[in-house]
Amino acid sequence: MSDDSGKRDGAGRVVALCGGVGGAKLALGLQANLGVRLTVIVNMADDFNHLGLHISPDLDTVLYTLSGLNDTARGWGRAGETWNFMAALQQVGGDTWFQLGDRDLALHVERTRRRALGETPTTIAADIAKRLGVTARILPATDADLRTMVTTPEGELEFQRYFVARRCEPTVKRIHFEGRENAMATDDVRQALAADDLELIVICPSNPYLSIDPILAVRGIADGLRAARAPVVAVSPIIGGEAVKGPTRKIMDELGLAPTNAEIVAHYRGLIDGLVIDRADGAEAASLGTEVCVAATLMTDLPSKIRLAEQVLAFGRRIRGARAGETIAVASGDGA
Amino acid sequence: MSDDSGKRDGAGRVVALCGGVGGAKLALGLQANLGVRLTVIVNMADDFNHLGLHISPDLDTVLYTLSGLNDTARGWGRAGETWNFMAALQQVGGDTWFQLGDRDLALHVERTRRRALGETPTTIAADIAKRLGVTARILPATDADLRTMVTTPEGELEFQRYFVARRCEPTVKRIHFEGRENAMATDDVRQALAADDLELIVICPSNPYLSIDPILAVRGIADGLRAARAPVVAVSPIIGGEAVKGPTRKIMDELGLAPTNAEIVAHYRGLIDGLVIDRADGAEAASLGTEVCVAATLMTDLPSKIRLAEQVLAFGRRIRGARAGETIAVASGDGA
Repeated sequence: MSDDSGKRDGAGRVVALCGGVGGAKLALGLQANLGVRLTVIVNMADDFNHLGLHISPDLDTVLYTLSGLNDTARGWGRAGETWNFMAALQQVGGDTWFQLGDRDLALHVERTRRRALGETPTTIAADIAKRLGVTARILPATDADLRTMVTTPEGELEFQRYFVARRCEPTVKRIHFEGRENAMATDDVRQALAADDLELIVICPSNPYLSIDPILAVRGIADGLRAARAPVVAVSPIIGGEAVKGPTRKIMDELGLAPTNAEIVAHYRGLIDGLVIDRADGAEAASLGTEVCVAATLMTDLPSKIRLAEQVLAFGRRIRGARAGETIAVASGDGA
Repeated sequence: MSDDSGKRDGAGRVVALCGGVGGAKLALGLQANLGVRLTVIVNMADDFNHLGLHISPDLDTVLYTLSGLNDTARGWGRAGETWNFMAALQQVGGDTWFQLGDRDLALHVERTRRRALGETPTTIAADIAKRLGVTARILPATDADLRTMVTTPEGELEFQRYFVARRCEPTVKRIHFEGRENAMATDDVRQALAADDLELIVICPSNPYLSIDPILAVRGIADGLRAARAPVVAVSPIIGGEAVKGPTRKIMDELGLAPTNAEIVAHYRGLIDGLVIDRADGAEAASLGTEVCVAATLMTDLPSKIRLAEQVLAFGRRIRGARAGETIAVASGDGA
């Protein structure tokens, strides 16, 4: 990657805040550009206990995606997965609402075993990432127990109950994060956000309410973003008034929020220095009140992920350049 | 099954004491003859915790064998098993000395989950047996924690460490059962041994020292055998001075015991009313000092299991008949 527009030499570090599938796609594009210079801070608030196992769905999605083990056709889990455990579990009367592939299961069993020995999620994630061949550094947002809870007409639902068992069907009245008073950013996360050679912080196009907010709810992370010398840019999850996938649009409706980039900017106000929006929404660029990069944000294959990542990185360089007194062209995302 | 030689009408119950693979073969033959009239009391002292899971190897062997789910070619585990969990576990650095098939794993996960909720091994085994379609009644010998420990030159080894990880290689200096002072027979086991309609108690040809002794070490079981009105017969695990499979012969050597039926009779003295020995050892029959049934004890296929079971049951009828004053022909195992 050439870097001729920014203040720095382009050899610094980049931090990405990431939830599950959508965010991991951009993280993969960033990793292809940055390699070991990328640190991904991952949402841990959709973790849950199931069948006695500690399951970290977003973290595992990131691990599988960045190691190339993910199933790109199905969109979740591991490629070449088999389901004999589930079939046998059903046979003995087990709880089968959450699909656990035979290969995927190994990660849950091993993580649960290591957690029971007192190892931190951070240590376990680093070790597994290394073993799976992930180049980027993977950091759980917190080692504490933090749980995304969804208030619905059916009562309080743990995130996976809402998301998987109830398929996002109940109306969302409120989202809150259980345990947030004790959920501190790890030292690794604090240091990553405060690093001298940090060039850019990217908020991936994950669901702002269910995937990014529980990262920002961790004590020290939002402050770390505000204090960082590197610019912070978000990639909007909205394309043409719709979310690419998942319940983002439905939740925005239910929370009384317009499904627009203006709403995303309002949501991240005070935290971000710029927003990457899709070409379909290019007309909004001038009215958003922040730096804007217009790009093709739909990531369908690896080249589109790498290209979007390049544009995000170039956007960061331009913001850094502007801070250094240079002129930048806003509302133009192509090329550096 | 016809029953014209015994005191009772042949419609009563039979209890079998059983370890793993070898014992389960006879249990399958007994189940084919007796259906719901069979109760199998299973060794639980080779249970162990592995990867955070509670694993009951002998119990599962019995469950898989009596439900027809076992892999008869491999000799252990489930038929049609896959190993993708193990491959993935190795990938993330997990402990792979104990092979866990993808299907088999379901039983361990579900059992561990239910035990953590406070359910007893007895309740869980009964439910799983029913779900898997096992006709016989399956009873763990105890709901308490009892562990077979093997004293070797390498120190104290848990049974599975000795049996699987160390492949029975270390010399056995002593076998003892950790937790035996608190391991009580369950009410179900006591009642099964004291049942009015109990016709016969069978000690399966499992390893006497590693599989049957830990059943007899459970408080109330040896007494139950001695107090039962039904005769107790054992099927010898020795054929022609060798054990069919497993470490029986090696352990007898290491413990200074001759690998003979006389040694088996001495081991079970005071508990059994008769011993079933193989045709290869028929010449020993007259000198064993107990009732003897000579039969083909090598169980290679289902018919040979059913046939041996028939002979064991007929042997029981003849002992009952003798007690009733009738003449029985000892040292003749064929037919009633």
